[in-house]
Amino acid sequence: MRAVDIITAKRDGGELSGEEIAFLIKGFTGGEIPDYQVAAWAMAVFFRGMNAAETAALTEAMLDSGGRMDLSGIPGPLVDKHSTGGVGDKTSLILAPLAASLGLRDPMMSGRALGHTGGTLDKLESIPGYRTGLSPQEFREILARDGFAMTGQTKDTVPADRLLYALRDVTGTVESIPLITASILSKKKAEGAEALVLDVKYGAGAFMKEGAEAEKLARSLTNTGAALGIRIIVLLTSMEEPLGRMVGNFLEVEECWACLDPAAYGGADDSGAQGPAGSADLMEVTLELGARMLMLGGKAAHSAQGRLLCVESLRSGKPRELFLQNIKSQGGDPERFLAMLGTYRSPHRAEIRAEREGYISRIDAWKVGHAGISLGVGRNRSGDTVSPAAGIELHRKSGDRVKAGDLIMTVWGKDKTALDAALGGLGAALEYAETPPPRTARILKEIRQD
Amino acid sequence: MRAVDIITAKRDGGELSGEEIAFLIKGFTGGEIPDYQVAAWAMAVFFRGMNAAETAALTEAMLDSGGRMDLSGIPGPLVDKHSTGGVGDKTSLILAPLAASLGLRDPMMSGRALGHTGGTLDKLESIPGYRTGLSPQEFREILARDGFAMTGQTKDTVPADRLLYALRDVTGTVESIPLITASILSKKKAEGAEALVLDVKYGAGAFMKEGAEAEKLARSLTNTGAALGIRIIVLLTSMEEPLGRMVGNFLEVEECWACLDPAAYGGADDSGAQGPAGSADLMEVTLELGARMLMLGGKAAHSAQGRLLCVESLRSGKPRELFLQNIKSQGGDPERFLAMLGTYRSPHRAEIRAEREGYISRIDAWKVGHAGISLGVGRNRSGDTVSPAAGIELHRKSGDRVKAGDLIMTVWGKDKTALDAALGGLGAALEYAETPPPRTARILKEIRQD
Repeated sequence: MRAVDIITAKRDGGELSGEEIAFLIKGFTGGEIPDYQVAAWAMAVFFRGMNAAETAALTEAMLDSGGRMDLSGIPGPLVDKHSTGGVGDKTSLILAPLAASLGLRDPMMSGRALGHTGGTLDKLESIPGYRTGLSPQEFREILARDGFAMTGQTKDTVPADRLLYALRDVTGTVESIPLITASILSKKKAEGAEALVLDVKYGAGAFMKEGAEAEKLARSLTNTGAALGIRIIVLLTSMEEPLGRMVGNFLEVEECWACLDPAAYGGADDSGAQGPAGSADLMEVTLELGARMLMLGGKAAHSAQGRLLCVESLRSGKPRELFLQNIKSQGGDPERFLAMLGTYRSPHRAEIRAEREGYISRIDAWKVGHAGISLGVGRNRSGDTVSPAAGIELHRKSGDRVKAGDLIMTVWGKDKTALDAALGGLGAALEYAETPPPRTARILKEIRQD
Repeated sequence: MRAVDIITAKRDGGELSGEEIAFLIKGFTGGEIPDYQVAAWAMAVFFRGMNAAETAALTEAMLDSGGRMDLSGIPGPLVDKHSTGGVGDKTSLILAPLAASLGLRDPMMSGRALGHTGGTLDKLESIPGYRTGLSPQEFREILARDGFAMTGQTKDTVPADRLLYALRDVTGTVESIPLITASILSKKKAEGAEALVLDVKYGAGAFMKEGAEAEKLARSLTNTGAALGIRIIVLLTSMEEPLGRMVGNFLEVEECWACLDPAAYGGADDSGAQGPAGSADLMEVTLELGARMLMLGGKAAHSAQGRLLCVESLRSGKPRELFLQNIKSQGGDPERFLAMLGTYRSPHRAEIRAEREGYISRIDAWKVGHAGISLGVGRNRSGDTVSPAAGIELHRKSGDRVKAGDLIMTVWGKDKTALDAALGGLGAALEYAETPPPRTARILKEIRQD
């Protein structure tokens, strides 16, 4: 078997066998197949695609490059959620304790902020003492006890994905649907999840700008999951505007804490928006995702029942207790965390106020995300450090009517220079209109396995 | 400027600027841009193509990686011919002295056999003492005196092409029309040619299997040549069957010597086939190419005039004298060469005779070429050595009527094992039919610059 023949076969539109794909990935990881052949192959895959069988073979080959979390003996359906990334996207921090409160086990292995999107690990680490580098033994124990555990990937987590991603990043081959699919599913399979809800985002603030492209990824994920024996439901969700009212690290944890407040779920039914003011869109997405987790875990027959169970549980306060318990389990100090709420902010603060009267017609998530990098929320390169206390609070969202001078955003930068650098971009993210903008749904479509 | 942005721009169908292309090639040659980025870029070029301006910029960038032959002060139009390669394709050895006899200067820098196609340098080196590694000074002197000189590429001849070809060879990116175009034209421009006749071959024994694909390459060559200021005429010629009656190294030199014999041009006009029996197809292609060289060199107004001038010159014996003179100029011994004619053969000899009565309907050039590799005519890898005295003589060509047992081929192998290995393939190259096969033209089309 020769790498050049595998490249040429894919280039000419052929289907690769599992043996060929395993040969390529094993050789690449082992250093026998050089980077340049894998780069040419990845570009051929970009143009020619891969079917579900090929993508499943790639996922398995990548998985075989490292270890898998051993979750045997842990009872209960192991259901996780993964998002393709967005701005203000913090559903994981609400969903993990929520799912656990309803009898699921969520083994959550997350990533860090990169580019304009945030990272769950960076948010959690804004809680003083919180450890995201759990040993496998700790991960198992916390998962078994609290119902969820939150950890980062180790060197042994799918090393082929790390190597391949680094190569794709510099060869223009990141945006390949089968390569994205295998990257996501190999890591989720390595963490031990049996079933997955995937939040595939599209729009200005997402990696996929178009719903049609996101839908292709969604179908690749469900089809490949089927070939791998992982049950998957995908929601296609809009990422035109930041999700919720906070963009930052500790700021986002704080918003999740507010969303876990039982008092925010006073209504007697699950119709309409639920949760705190300003977080309606966040909770809309969170409840839809949570409902699908419950369906996959056998706890709900349909999404309406799942949503109702989620709201009832939130109203009980149990998820909030589990959240605090998890902080303690992973090395944080719950008392100190509670004392920081509403006060842990960078001293470098500015405000953005409405330039004119009218309706806010758009808050561009991409521009807000990029301003976040400047502020210290995210990072341009994987080695950069982030600031826990920087970020943006959105006092108004699109559709809101404002008068000139009304407060729209409060902004905190890691330092004065960072703050000044971000303000222009944040101002440019705002658009106004004379009439209310059309209300757009956050959930575009649900895609299930056949 | 970043390589990844250049890759992505091409991947997405963009047109690259001359600066971007120069940045990439310079960085690649200088070792600053790694192989894997160039491999991904080459694959993107395979899928997206390049227009004439981009291909011209690539040719110039590649040229800038090495030296150019300084032919200033050498009078006369500097016109060369290049073929994309075939089996039994030996027109260069006839054309160079023929063009020189008619007042052109042909600075011929050639390559070696690779795969199933032969190489001009290997053929010339079958003449004892003949040197193909001329110094630039020797090349100039011989060119000025004899009207043509034959040399190989040096380390300084377009090093970027050598590096890029080595990378393309192992990354499935050889078959890219703009990359082929830039490879050909950079080397021809480096040798100092002002105008070029290109023989783009298609069919079983050529790299391009289809006429339509060959025509795309032809148009890329003429358009890019126009952008570079090189005048080019392309002939698309068929390479289904070996050209002429000899396939080998010294064997092909011998056929050329026979084609330079004035006695073979006894006819009073240029209608119909010219030259020795069995070499009609070879001379058909040679005269058409020669006529275009004369047109580009301002010696003929149209191809009919050019062909007539060629035949008249061949009849005069002057090209044959120049051929002998060149052997002497490049280190060979003309007397010894003449003594070898008809006798310099490997002792490992076999015959292939007709299995049945009928018409020969096909002699598959690809199979003959691959049998030639086994015999020792060509090489699989660039480091292999070739045998000067191995090869195949075709006593019959397609369209000939044969009886069972008639001699069709005499075969010489570098050794017994090589000979035995080749015979099966040669037998399989032959096809028979009850009725005469349709006569197919060797010249499919002429493509000129607008």
